Amino acid sequence: MRHLIDPLDFSVEEIDALLDLAGEIERNREKYSHLCDGRTLATLFYEPSTRTRLSFEAAMLNLGGRVLGFASADSSSAAKGESISDTIRVVSCYADICAIRHPKEGAPKVASQFSGIPVINAGDGGHQHPTQTLTDLLTIRSLKGRLGDLTIGLCGDLKFGRTVHSLIKSLSRYQGIRFALISPDELRLPDYIRKEVLDREGIPYEEVSDLEDVMGKLDILYMTRVQRERFFNEEDYVRLKDCYILTSKKMAAAKPDMAVLHPLPRVNEIATEVDSDPRAAYFKQAQYGVYVRMALIATLLNLAGREPEC
Amino acid sequence: MRHLIDPLDFSVEEIDALLDLAGEIERNREKYSHLCDGRTLATLFYEPSTRTRLSFEAAMLNLGGRVLGFASADSSSAAKGESISDTIRVVSCYADICAIRHPKEGAPKVASQFSGIPVINAGDGGHQHPTQTLTDLLTIRSLKGRLGDLTIGLCGDLKFGRTVHSLIKSLSRYQGIRFALISPDELRLPDYIRKEVLDREGIPYEEVSDLEDVMGKLDILYMTRVQRERFFNEEDYVRLKDCYILTSKKMAAAKPDMAVLHPLPRVNEIATEVDSDPRAAYFKQAQYGVYVRMALIATLLNLAGREPEC
Amino acid sequence: MRHLIDPLDFSVEEIDALLDLAGEIERNREKYSHLCDGRTLATLFYEPSTRTRLSFEAAMLNLGGRVLGFASADSSSAAKGESISDTIRVVSCYADICAIRHPKEGAPKVASQFSGIPVINAGDGGHQHPTQTLTDLLTIRSLKGRLGDLTIGLCGDLKFGRTVHSLIKSLSRYQGIRFALISPDELRLPDYIRKEVLDREGIPYEEVSDLEDVMGKLDILYMTRVQRERFFNEEDYVRLKDCYILTSKKMAAAKPDMAVLHPLPRVNEIATEVDSDPRAAYFKQAQYGVYVRMALIATLLNLAGREPEC
Repeated sequence: MRHLIDPLDFSVEEIDALLDLAGEIERNREKYSHLCDGRTLATLFYEPSTRTRLSFEAAMLNLGGRVLGFASADSSSAAKGESISDTIRVVSCYADICAIRHPKEGAPKVASQFSGIPVINAGDGGHQHPTQTLTDLLTIRSLKGRLGDLTIGLCGDLKFGRTVHSLIKSLSRYQGIRFALISPDELRLPDYIRKEVLDREGIPYEEVSDLEDVMGKLDILYMTRVQRERFFNEEDYVRLKDCYILTSKKMAAAKPDMAVLHPLPRVNEIATEVDSDPRAAYFKQAQYGVYVRMALIATLLNLAGREPEC
Repeated sequence: MRHLIDPLDFSVEEIDALLDLAGEIERNREKYSHLCDGRTLATLFYEPSTRTRLSFEAAMLNLGGRVLGFASADSSSAAKGESISDTIRVVSCYADICAIRHPKEGAPKVASQFSGIPVINAGDGGHQHPTQTLTDLLTIRSLKGRLGDLTIGLCGDLKFGRTVHSLIKSLSRYQGIRFALISPDELRLPDYIRKEVLDREGIPYEEVSDLEDVMGKLDILYMTRVQRERFFNEEDYVRLKDCYILTSKKMAAAKPDMAVLHPLPRVNEIATEVDSDPRAAYFKQAQYGVYVRMALIATLLNLAGREPEC
Repeated sequence: MRHLIDPLDFSVEEIDALLDLAGEIERNREKYSHLCDGRTLATLFYEPSTRTRLSFEAAMLNLGGRVLGFASADSSSAAKGESISDTIRVVSCYADICAIRHPKEGAPKVASQFSGIPVINAGDGGHQHPTQTLTDLLTIRSLKGRLGDLTIGLCGDLKFGRTVHSLIKSLSRYQGIRFALISPDELRLPDYIRKEVLDREGIPYEEVSDLEDVMGKLDILYMTRVQRERFFNEEDYVRLKDCYILTSKKMAAAKPDMAVLHPLPRVNEIATEVDSDPRAAYFKQAQYGVYVRMALIATLLNLAGREPEC
């Protein structure tokens, strides 16, 4: 039985197979619409996250399966002091696969060790959010046709943003990747990523504090939200949050086929005027998030290779 | 693509077609039980409203479709500062149609302008609640066989009650409608409805403060709840809330085929002794609410004319 | 129309038929996977209880049915002052059967008196929780092959634990049952159970304060949680909660085929080291809870005798 806890749990070959399946699903939605008939997904969200939860639920429903679960810890047995290892053993009686969102780092990992069903980490604190990374990879590959030979700009909060860290680690496994790291000094990529991933693997990168310095080189611009809850004081947040706002004016300097991604929700780091730019890909990204979760569920339930009945 | 934001978005002809379909569904539930197979309804409730939410969900499930969404803003991305225009663009990737309840007037309208899927306004503050109006119209037509040539009594809070305002506007489009407006002076129908709708259209009406003055004339008695949250001070609420309570004694003066409607939930404005009166139609009304929402979903998804497969 | 409000609402014969059906479902899950196609379960949880709610939802989904409802009172119309008798009449328009959890004793009973659909009591305060009792009975019968001729140890909070009281009443209807009541003096079984059930029916029992005194005799050991919310002061809770913790050392004195049950969630009254003991049956019990709820739903919808189509 496989789980997905860390974005690197899957090899490059497994990722490629998963993305192939997601693409196949995109092209033949109808064909896969009964693949999970009679199967149940449990969404155990100890921390609210509407977007991620609904994306998982849409994925399972699109496959013909059904969904049960909870949307916040208030309404869970956690309030009665139950451990996640007990909860997952019980939920294993109710469902065939589950997605867990938890404020504590490592909770989905612990759950997977006691689970009778595949566990998907749907975000554990500031730690990992592997299905966001899969979504990002699928979006890039679908838009650019490849995952290698790309210059990727990462802009905003590179210190606390877990999606950025995971994306760097995952893309570093492909050939010909170059990064442009765009952030204020206070929110630079931490050493343990810069040194232990980029330097060690010999991945070319540059660090700049001004988006305009690198705009013209980028194939992908990955914008991130400056999250209020990651800051230690309100003043720093207010001073920095508006520094890295993408506007149409800045977009004018970009390549005609650059794609703008964002894990969403955005607050104001992308001006709404950019939404109508054909290079704005962040809403398409939400759609790819459903396809990749469909592929993931099918894969973890060992239904991926099965010929779907039409 | 059509949305339903305001009760008057549909013409009289469209309303009639919708009510016809609802009646057809009522008579042949089985026939329509797979009309929405493979389609998904998103229920985005930024303000809790169990009754309305469950009615929408029952409608979609009865059509063979499935449902995802959230029941209150706490568990939504709104808490992270996301705009409704972004949310609806993402939800458009997850579902085929959506129903939005929002505390702010106009929010569903804004959503519809950015949506990739049909949007149904499931109530926006004190503003509009068009599916309640459709429910009222279907109930009246089903019980009386027509929407014209009726004397309609509206009793209780005629000042703040949005369902009453919408019902007046909608019924005013039919021939031979007469209204009896029964309320305390403080809760009279506002001028912008009385003058701009009733007077302008030449609809006959009388205003009374005593239900018993008009009881014998009514074909329909529409009771409303005196909502605590609409009052500026507690004293006024306490003084007025019990003034317009329907009892069996008052029912004795009514026509034998009068029908009592109420949008529910009631607090105490209809004594429970009235429940066993065959003229009490407020629970049937809840059932009609499901049928009319089934017809609405089918219509907005362009499935209304499609011959269902048995 | 039948409801299930009290564990004793069903006769011994009816319980036996229900458990037979649950066993049949366990052996032929696929055969029953469409029994409730097109039927809807409403889960009305005025008090959160994830485990019970998900068990009901899993049961209905496994039968091919669908689910709607609410997980806590916050998001229900109860907040607007609606009575449960009104709510159930409306919900009767939305669903074919419902499960109600309510903090007030007797609320599900009241609901059943006004309901147009079968009502299942999913727990009413400290009063009744009949589907837990059915789960316990199915677990015991499945593991031991019978419901008579058994020595049952009940350990922990025997004063406030409603599941223990219901289990005693239900098992007392079978032949050859003996109880060992293991609790601190403060949490002894109340007189109204001991005298009015055990003494009156002539059921043999002994009361001890030390689990080790009876361990070797038991066929079933039913552990219970010492619930913080049932205590009047924190000191008593702290002093007593750890007294009756089951460990591997204590298990060494038990029969090789004894079964340990627990209604879950546990806090620390069973050491996790016991989980790997083959006699630990509390997670299997959660699985039996799904099967027995499937049998119950089928029975109350009068589908139990119907030959399922494969």
